[in-house]
Amino acid sequence: MEHKIKVGITQGDINGVGYEVILKTLSDPHILEICTPVVYGSAKVAAYHRKALDIPAVNFNIIADASLADDNKINLITCVDDEVKVEIGKATAVGGEAAYAALERAAADIEAVTIDVLVTAPINKHAIQSDKFDFPGHTEYLEKRLGRGRKALMILLNETLRVALVSGHLPIAQVPGAITKEAILEKLRIFEQSLKQDFCVVKPRIAVLSLNPHAGDDGLLGTEEIDIIKPAIQEANNKGMLCFGPYPADGFFGTDHYRRFDGVLAMYHDQGLAPFKALAMEDGVNYTAGLPVVRTSPDHGTAYDIAGQNKADEQSFRHALYLALDVYRNRRFHKEISASPLRKQYFDKSGDKEVLDLTADTDNDE
Amino acid sequence: MEHKIKVGITQGDINGVGYEVILKTLSDPHILEICTPVVYGSAKVAAYHRKALDIPAVNFNIIADASLADDNKINLITCVDDEVKVEIGKATAVGGEAAYAALERAAADIEAVTIDVLVTAPINKHAIQSDKFDFPGHTEYLEKRLGRGRKALMILLNETLRVALVSGHLPIAQVPGAITKEAILEKLRIFEQSLKQDFCVVKPRIAVLSLNPHAGDDGLLGTEEIDIIKPAIQEANNKGMLCFGPYPADGFFGTDHYRRFDGVLAMYHDQGLAPFKALAMEDGVNYTAGLPVVRTSPDHGTAYDIAGQNKADEQSFRHALYLALDVYRNRRFHKEISASPLRKQYFDKSGDKEVLDLTADTDNDE
Repeated sequence: MEHKIKVGITQGDINGVGYEVILKTLSDPHILEICTPVVYGSAKVAAYHRKALDIPAVNFNIIADASLADDNKINLITCVDDEVKVEIGKATAVGGEAAYAALERAAADIEAVTIDVLVTAPINKHAIQSDKFDFPGHTEYLEKRLGRGRKALMILLNETLRVALVSGHLPIAQVPGAITKEAILEKLRIFEQSLKQDFCVVKPRIAVLSLNPHAGDDGLLGTEEIDIIKPAIQEANNKGMLCFGPYPADGFFGTDHYRRFDGVLAMYHDQGLAPFKALAMEDGVNYTAGLPVVRTSPDHGTAYDIAGQNKADEQSFRHALYLALDVYRNRRFHKEISASPLRKQYFDKSGDKEVLDLTADTDNDE
Repeated sequence: MEHKIKVGITQGDINGVGYEVILKTLSDPHILEICTPVVYGSAKVAAYHRKALDIPAVNFNIIADASLADDNKINLITCVDDEVKVEIGKATAVGGEAAYAALERAAADIEAVTIDVLVTAPINKHAIQSDKFDFPGHTEYLEKRLGRGRKALMILLNETLRVALVSGHLPIAQVPGAITKEAILEKLRIFEQSLKQDFCVVKPRIAVLSLNPHAGDDGLLGTEEIDIIKPAIQEANNKGMLCFGPYPADGFFGTDHYRRFDGVLAMYHDQGLAPFKALAMEDGVNYTAGLPVVRTSPDHGTAYDIAGQNKADEQSFRHALYLALDVYRNRRFHKEISASPLRKQYFDKSGDKEVLDLTADTDNDE
């Protein structure tokens, strides 16, 4: 029998809705049938939230190390002093330190393969900043910590839509400068590779959005489509990728056009995320593509405004956990089927008869 | 009995889906119960489309002038040579001229009040350009032609959402320069006034979106929120308007937060329109606020790719027609109730007793 997948779960910011969505997800009695959870945090902080929220208790098996995780229990590794002060709804230095301690411990464990996948609860990006953590967020930290030089690509997804961005957390004024042919091609490469190995799409079709309104309207509303985006799509196509566009964002999301693609590459943050969240609502999930390890997270933040009020919906966190399991299995499956591929058979149909051509290169992604 | 509202309908581009959505809307047998349609175009071109699409015929009452419109018939004013060449799915100079001729005739008639409201079918912005028409679209043309110096504001709306933009058809690189305190305040003023007189919202609540991702994240991701948008909202509030924000676009549309407001002011085209169209799908409508006349249009274009194939959905055009009727009635109602308002009674509750203070100014929007 195959081993149950060990899911590392970081507590995130202890003053937000992190523990609420974690506890609600783990209180499902079926959770142990599908995975072995290992929470990085504090049983005492968890109990504090449980009482404040008045939700059923989750029994934790406190362990000293992830290698000691019990397959039939919800395990917890204590990463912070049990006397740590929780201040619901507030950004505190103590909360930032606690979030960092759990994240760093989990990162070390997934690197040592004592856990299989990582699901992170939201952090407060201001509170967590320190001399040890100087990143805009989880993604950049994990890229540096676990990427082995590879670039990460954030993908937001739900059942019907997968959206990635060329530029991320940038002021609008800096967006046009970040849209280069090289940047688009790099994101397309990571996106396509992830769609293949993480989502088992054999030949992914990727839609590329335009930077300007109406796709620049033949240059009347901006020239980046003509000068940068179209040539990038052309070059990607020349490399054998199935990329299409550039499409104007409003028309693209206004019809069900997006359902015809396996992925959508938006040019900047709000262009991709505003329509994505409008369509995905509660079931959107973040996936960090491009890394050697599997990491997912819910698509919401610490939500201080509703913390401690039993108002947080755990759907996104639960979907993030399911997605981590799916991607882990997909990667294993993709590795198996592409480990020793048959030499592909190319038929030359240019002449009168079909001729089997064995001289052509095989197409192996690994 | 009050007179039936006369609805001027321009044919738009004769090679697109304009006639398809017009004919499908007017073929509803109940249409004459709610309004008197006056189509600006050509019965022969309409017949050409009807045959190509294989849809039921609409009987037109050909009239020489809108003042001759029959309340019990679907009227048509011939604006183009009946021998005009239709080339389905193509942008042609002939099609552009025909669209202009119909629009100009309808504009003259609504100015002369021989029609009450205007619903425009989509034009091709390239084909219609000439020495007589040098505008990015309908809105700018009508602002110049009928605005009497007033500024127009495009509002996209459906049942639950009304979105207006601070900057419109601009390349992204020029957007930050267009976001000024004055521009935001002017749009807020027109938006609020329209919500009052056109939609009968007594005290409109308007949400203002941020320019940068995460509302600039306290200046980390751009300073326009601090320097421009927040001061503009503050000044609007000081003037007695109920404006809120700035809200990050993705979080705003990702929850049902937008339902709590009567209007949403986005900073640029894709930020407002991509989530709007994602949510509104087929029932979105354009409304041109700020003009002395009432003009609406569907939120789709000429759709050359599906023209002549009986694939166009007339929902948006039908909603545009309904909206024009609603706004016309709302304006009349608003005028009536605000024509001679009672002096408002202010009670001074600062002391021990309530004192009626009749010295305070009345608040009359007209």
